[in-house]
Amino acid sequence: KMLRRVLCAVLLIGALPSLAEVTQGHISVVLLGATGDLAKKYLWQGLFQLYMDQVSSGHSFTFHGAALTAQEPGQRLMFDVLKKLACPSDEPPNRCAVLKDQFLKLSQYHQLKTAENYTVLNREIQALLRQEGLKEAGRIFYFSVPPFAYTEIARHINSSCRPPPGAWLRVVLEKPFGHDLESAQQLAAELKSFFREEEMYRVDHYLGKQAVAHILPFRDQNRQFLDPIWNRRHVERVEIVLKETVDAKGRTSFYEQYGVIRDVLQNHLTEALMFLTMELPANVSRAEEVLQSKLQAFQSLRRLEKGSAVLGQYQAYASQVQEELQKAPTYVSPTPTFAGVLVHSDSLRWEGVPFLLTSGKALDERVGYVRVLFKNRAYCTQRETLRDAGHSQCKAKQIIFYIGHGALNTPAVLVSRNLFRPVMPKGSWREAVGQPDLHVFGQPLSDYYVYSPVKERDAYSVLISNIYHGRKDFFITTENLLASWAFWTPLLESISHQPLRLYPGGVENQHLLDFEMVGGEVAFTVAEPAELLKPSKVMPSDYRTIQSKFRQSPLVSAWSEDLVSQLASDMEKTASRTVAHSGQFHLALSGGSSPVVLFQRLARHHYAFPWKHTHIWLVDERCVPLTDTESNFFSLHNHLLQSVRVPYFNIHPMPVYLNQRLCVEEDGGTELYAKEIKALVANASFDLVLLGLGTDGHTASLFPYSESGLEGARTVVLTESPVKPHQRMSLSLPLINKAKQVFVLVLGKGKHDITTLVSRVGHEPKKWPISGVSPSSGQLVWYVDYEALLG
Amino acid sequence: KMLRRVLCAVLLIGALPSLAEVTQGHISVVLLGATGDLAKKYLWQGLFQLYMDQVSSGHSFTFHGAALTAQEPGQRLMFDVLKKLACPSDEPPNRCAVLKDQFLKLSQYHQLKTAENYTVLNREIQALLRQEGLKEAGRIFYFSVPPFAYTEIARHINSSCRPPPGAWLRVVLEKPFGHDLESAQQLAAELKSFFREEEMYRVDHYLGKQAVAHILPFRDQNRQFLDPIWNRRHVERVEIVLKETVDAKGRTSFYEQYGVIRDVLQNHLTEALMFLTMELPANVSRAEEVLQSKLQAFQSLRRLEKGSAVLGQYQAYASQVQEELQKAPTYVSPTPTFAGVLVHSDSLRWEGVPFLLTSGKALDERVGYVRVLFKNRAYCTQRETLRDAGHSQCKAKQIIFYIGHGALNTPAVLVSRNLFRPVMPKGSWREAVGQPDLHVFGQPLSDYYVYSPVKERDAYSVLISNIYHGRKDFFITTENLLASWAFWTPLLESISHQPLRLYPGGVENQHLLDFEMVGGEVAFTVAEPAELLKPSKVMPSDYRTIQSKFRQSPLVSAWSEDLVSQLASDMEKTASRTVAHSGQFHLALSGGSSPVVLFQRLARHHYAFPWKHTHIWLVDERCVPLTDTESNFFSLHNHLLQSVRVPYFNIHPMPVYLNQRLCVEEDGGTELYAKEIKALVANASFDLVLLGLGTDGHTASLFPYSESGLEGARTVVLTESPVKPHQRMSLSLPLINKAKQVFVLVLGKGKHDITTLVSRVGHEPKKWPISGVSPSSGQLVWYVDYEALLG
Repeated sequence: KMLRRVLCAVLLIGALPSLAEVTQGHISVVLLGATGDLAKKYLWQGLFQLYMDQVSSGHSFTFHGAALTAQEPGQRLMFDVLKKLACPSDEPPNRCAVLKDQFLKLSQYHQLKTAENYTVLNREIQALLRQEGLKEAGRIFYFSVPPFAYTEIARHINSSCRPPPGAWLRVVLEKPFGHDLESAQQLAAELKSFFREEEMYRVDHYLGKQAVAHILPFRDQNRQFLDPIWNRRHVERVEIVLKETVDAKGRTSFYEQYGVIRDVLQNHLTEALMFLTMELPANVSRAEEVLQSKLQAFQSLRRLEKGSAVLGQYQAYASQVQEELQKAPTYVSPTPTFAGVLVHSDSLRWEGVPFLLTSGKALDERVGYVRVLFKNRAYCTQRETLRDAGHSQCKAKQIIFYIGHGALNTPAVLVSRNLFRPVMPKGSWREAVGQPDLHVFGQPLSDYYVYSPVKERDAYSVLISNIYHGRKDFFITTENLLASWAFWTPLLESISHQPLRLYPGGVENQHLLDFEMVGGEVAFTVAEPAELLKPSKVMPSDYRTIQSKFRQSPLVSAWSEDLVSQLASDMEKTASRTVAHSGQFHLALSGGSSPVVLFQRLARHHYAFPWKHTHIWLVDERCVPLTDTESNFFSLHNHLLQSVRVPYFNIHPMPVYLNQRLCVEEDGGTELYAKEIKALVANASFDLVLLGLGTDGHTASLFPYSESGLEGARTVVLTESPVKPHQRMSLSLPLINKAKQVFVLVLGKGKHDITTLVSRVGHEPKKWPISGVSPSSGQLVWYVDYEALLG
Repeated sequence: KMLRRVLCAVLLIGALPSLAEVTQGHISVVLLGATGDLAKKYLWQGLFQLYMDQVSSGHSFTFHGAALTAQEPGQRLMFDVLKKLACPSDEPPNRCAVLKDQFLKLSQYHQLKTAENYTVLNREIQALLRQEGLKEAGRIFYFSVPPFAYTEIARHINSSCRPPPGAWLRVVLEKPFGHDLESAQQLAAELKSFFREEEMYRVDHYLGKQAVAHILPFRDQNRQFLDPIWNRRHVERVEIVLKETVDAKGRTSFYEQYGVIRDVLQNHLTEALMFLTMELPANVSRAEEVLQSKLQAFQSLRRLEKGSAVLGQYQAYASQVQEELQKAPTYVSPTPTFAGVLVHSDSLRWEGVPFLLTSGKALDERVGYVRVLFKNRAYCTQRETLRDAGHSQCKAKQIIFYIGHGALNTPAVLVSRNLFRPVMPKGSWREAVGQPDLHVFGQPLSDYYVYSPVKERDAYSVLISNIYHGRKDFFITTENLLASWAFWTPLLESISHQPLRLYPGGVENQHLLDFEMVGGEVAFTVAEPAELLKPSKVMPSDYRTIQSKFRQSPLVSAWSEDLVSQLASDMEKTASRTVAHSGQFHLALSGGSSPVVLFQRLARHHYAFPWKHTHIWLVDERCVPLTDTESNFFSLHNHLLQSVRVPYFNIHPMPVYLNQRLCVEEDGGTELYAKEIKALVANASFDLVLLGLGTDGHTASLFPYSESGLEGARTVVLTESPVKPHQRMSLSLPLINKAKQVFVLVLGKGKHDITTLVSRVGHEPKKWPISGVSPSSGQLVWYVDYEALLG
């Protein structure tokens, strides 16, 4: 009723330019959580800004604050906020005062608690529009409420507050959007049952930060300069940083569940990363193209591992948690408040370029930036002190998107003067002056072209304007969100028991949180941490591998990632020793899923592996073409061979495909492979054979009760698998047992039962082919992870 | 007679410690060119130093100055020099005075002009030794004479001045040792007819510079720190620099023949480069091991190309040459006085690391250094200005061997404090203090550990001591010399017509000589040079390729290197376009020698080539195993495939080896290849076929009057070559003519006749198979270099 009264009053006055030209229809904005912190601090101001900007756009507006509070007190609370709305400095005070008055009249409070409340709201909007003869353009529902309330509200909106056909619905959601891939998928699925994808606007307020929002336009407008240098050949590294001085005090109940990676890296820094790494679509203002390109960029990200991150926690956090969450004084929180993460993209453009994402609380300064540092390829003949003040090519070359705060205390775009003078949109960015002696990123400000926004705008104002304009590229789509969680979740899982480095907070942190890249991973620079936080759940050993015996042979055991690292190192050592001794190394590799992580590890961390002198053989193969994704060789190629330099002549896939058919006995594939082995491998004794273990006790492609390969003179055989594809080619047990070394890799809980069984049985290769592995004069080593060993 | 008198006098005095203990025998030192500049400036002082150092060594000495000048004036000239010999500051003045007096008495002048003179000298030495009852230990002949005099003197020494059996002969030679590979080989051959390799001591006085001489010991003594970082993963770049302020005035007659590369880079800087890049032998004091290791390092150097160097000439050089060499005022000298050269080693250790060798006259300062800059892998979380004064890992990390002059004005070894505290030999190097605020290489001196020699010693003193000690690793062996010339000669040849950038000289050069690395080459940074010097020998065009017609098809022509660059670019463009259009690119490549430079160019300069989507086919193959060095595929693998990332599945060598035999019709290799083409290449129409041209008019392996392949339905055929290996496999003309594009590459003078002939003949494939190349619906382009086109 109040709504009608307000609008009627306005219409009666009849002097508003906005209503004189309502040709585009009416927009109803509903702010859920209208009296909450975010609404008070940013959202109402953002809505007022929208009104000021769009009052002459041809749309008419009404603003509906809503909360659980009853009508009278809620209304009072809300109007207390509205009365304090500020007039921006660039707005003529008179106009602003008039518009603020109008805005207040167009705003109304609603208690939205029951289903009935929503039905009433809907009815009121419809009645008003009918009465005033206004066409409905659309409705915006802004969810400024805790995530647990989402489903309930979404259900009500969907069932009783949808606008009529022809008008759009936009629901605006605030993070957190889950805390890992699974919970995000669940939440996404629920929302999907109420809203269509195009109706949902997930806010990442970083996309409203002016410097972040300008990354893509900058790349687009400066294509001529960036095209040749925006790639791995020219970029040395990229830093994406958000440092805070505040800590989590008073917010630990939230923070304890999330931590810095979920709070900042998974969303804000990842979005900035995507704007940097994605391929520029032909048209950067087409949201569809931008989103597609961003999703592709996610696909190129290399999987994060435990070693990809360094983690810390400020010292006072523990007592804050104990106090705020009533924990025991012995409680140790596993929540990181600082993280430095090394991200790699395997795209052609970015392969090998380190992207360092860093954020933390209780640091020395508050600042956010995205810094692209280019390689220095110049040699300056003249001595430094004798060079003129010009812009020597020997100075650092960088492009910085300065998000805010810090030494500059304004959003800015900085481009080294020895790079190029950037093209910037005249209306919205202007060249900044002053403070030429201020040093930023190792150089005086005078070394850069510096641009700052003509109008500094708060992120929420920018975002609310983007919601109004339907610019979906400024929001996180479901696919985008899930891609990000898919990227971060493995890291979050692998670091959940990781020790955290304690830091005092503030300037005293000094070098304690410095870190460096070592062989594709990161580690703190100061080797001995002042103190380590050991998470409460203690496992056999996070750091040392267990050495023991299994079936009378040496056993190495550890958590799977550490085990694979150990195995890869041992393989490199064996390879180097063998090459030093005999000039070549014959390595036979198994297919299956377990070796994939090993292959990746070898490809990424073992630059000194003597690949040039290594021959690669297959232990077994599925009878499919080599280019089939099911092929063992295809997987080996994908995860290892394409990344290292094994000479073509040293690569020996199994000849499963001959005469345009697969594994036909008469085509003699097994004999061909046997001959090749005989011709190249001295005494047909491989230097190293890597085996796996199946849940049925099979190894290589030698299955229980196999008619061939378990004994006899044949070295390469065709076999039958109980699972598809049934036909296989495999090395025989007698050939495997001629090897100088045999490593068996067993990973995962799924292998626990067979591992236990195999640990007890004797030599029964018919029943359990793995039990027949027993090199006649070579060495056998078992690599079994804790999950397989201990269940 | 004077010698005897001198020695007798000494012996009669009988009070010299040196003679009291002559147990090691006598050494005669003969300095040829005893009154020349080098002798005056360094050599006599070096010999005096040797005497002071070794007077108690158990050896006795006599010193014989020799020159062409007659006895009386020569003697006077020489003793004028000897009287001025200085006492080093670290020698007690009394002892030095006594020793100087002895040294003068042991020294004598000889006119050495005729064969007779040499015979007399020899007789006198022998007589003296007999008379005094001294055993002869050895003779040193120091050639401080112009190289044209070498042969004559060498002949005389060999025929009449060799010491008796049991005593050694050491002849010391000063550069220049030739001016290219051929002349160096010739000079070496001549010397070899007079001296054994172990008798020759070729001086590169840089090896006597204390900082250069300490590179290997430093690497050895700091193995523990350097082992993990002395490689391509950690080293960002290396600079080897010798800058001079002086110009060539007064020396243009020498300089005009040599230029900066022969004068400084080929010898001094190359030797320093070798000390850095060679693998450390187990024992760095064993000359043999050091030399072997150095030679291996030479083998790993990547061939230099025209684009490997930037060249300049100081402005006054032209008038100096005109004046001193009586040249016409229009004479333009092609001699560079400044060079910056980018060197790469393809060893596993150094692959990809740029080594920048720079030297020039008339520059802003006199300085020499070897600087190893490490990659910065650290991220410092704390803001720069808030970090403590400690040694942040974010500061640059470098190791500098400071040869002398410059800001430090002393030889020194500098190691960044954030790297490690180096192990230095206590007796000979000490930590330097003072000048902590002096900036070197972008950092205050206080950022480094700085060591300087306890005794600063002149290079010639060091070298003369090394001659005395027989330390051959401080000298240039014949193999070493020829390896260096083999490395530099191709560059010297390719740049002989290169324009030179003129520079004013001194501090005014400013940025004019700065250069940078671009795609494996170097270029001056300031794009438009002030002035270019065009060498007088003007050819069609050094820079632009000629575009015209040949046999009614487009012709591209240029100097061979430019032509190959153009062809490689055109291939990349075709590949990118085709992949963008159809997702893959089918490329068929020919064997032979011409494509090798093309393959190398593609491997090194075309990072954006879409290799991942390219299929590589062979146009023809020799019937040898694929791993035979004669195999076309082997060469293709060596020069291209091993450096790029073509998926294994996309590589299609010709199946010449089947059933353990080569190219037997019944094994069906041609059918196999034909089937593979049919299965993968749409319509059997290659996207691009690269052909060559033989001097008999053959192309692919289709020879004149071949019975197969020139016509008919078969797509892959066996053929016979007139030269070994006779058997070949080849694509047929009809298949080649189905291609979408065919490029024919023809290089070199040897192809001039056939090129001329082919330009005139019609379609006669039987006689000249190349004339049958005529794509039915594709495009044919000829790439013919000037030498093949114009002779």
